[in-house]
Amino acid sequence: MTDACIFCQIIEKKSPATIVFEDERCLAILDIFPANPGHTLVMPKKHYSLLGEVPAEELTHAIEIVQKIGPAVQHAYRSQGYNVLVNNGTAAGQIVPHVHFHLVPRSMNDGKKFELPREQATPPQLAEAADKIKKELSHVKP
Amino acid sequence: MTDACIFCQIIEKKSPATIVFEDERCLAILDIFPANPGHTLVMPKKHYSLLGEVPAEELTHAIEIVQKIGPAVQHAYRSQGYNVLVNNGTAAGQIVPHVHFHLVPRSMNDGKKFELPREQATPPQLAEAADKIKKELSHVKP
Repeated sequence: MTDACIFCQIIEKKSPATIVFEDERCLAILDIFPANPGHTLVMPKKHYSLLGEVPAEELTHAIEIVQKIGPAVQHAYRSQGYNVLVNNGTAAGQIVPHVHFHLVPRSMNDGKKFELPREQATPPQLAEAADKIKKELSHVKP
Repeated sequence: MTDACIFCQIIEKKSPATIVFEDERCLAILDIFPANPGHTLVMPKKHYSLLGEVPAEELTHAIEIVQKIGPAVQHAYRSQGYNVLVNNGTAAGQIVPHVHFHLVPRSMNDGKKFELPREQATPPQLAEAADKIKKELSHVKP
């Protein structure tokens, strides 16, 4: 619990929110600025700013809840799919610094552009990127 | 393994890709149409079309790999954050029907708009959405 965190306040029931699911470790609420109706946020109850900080057991539980709520959000709106999005860091569009998964129901031709502008990479660009990332991963054992 | 699936072909080493991480159950490759340099895709090796189909143990492993590769992708590009995105279904922008997590390094002012257009929901809209979703979740025990 961090007093300054709006999601912690919601979890502690000190601030209002529309809760769609709750268990001991997770809370799911509606986003009040939905990308589409039914846009839901799933979060661990304990305060972690970033995905990398969430202990394995809690992360496992959170993704299992995402896996259950995703189809519910989709079917609730008779839509044909849904996006799961985690924004890590302000640069990535994270507004509340309490880890959360966005679940957004999506319909064909709903006019929402979720895709980033993308350009095909050249082989040298791919090789350079792989080098950089593998260096960072050198401590991660398969 | 599904012959028609390009990701299965990559996993089986029958099609080329730039691999940045591999273990028994997961593969991470570079997206050849990166949203930003270093855009990586993490996928379970077994073929599942949608997130909802991935068994708990494999899902747990995949999210743990995402948790490790996310910061690596960020640090490789000295960026300030990263997005994790799963597109479920064609309507949600899924192009290859083999579950995968997009990891996109993000920098402040990188000019990428990852956010959907969003509008504030009214209380009745939120109440209606919660009703619909809770109905779909009625079989999910907290």
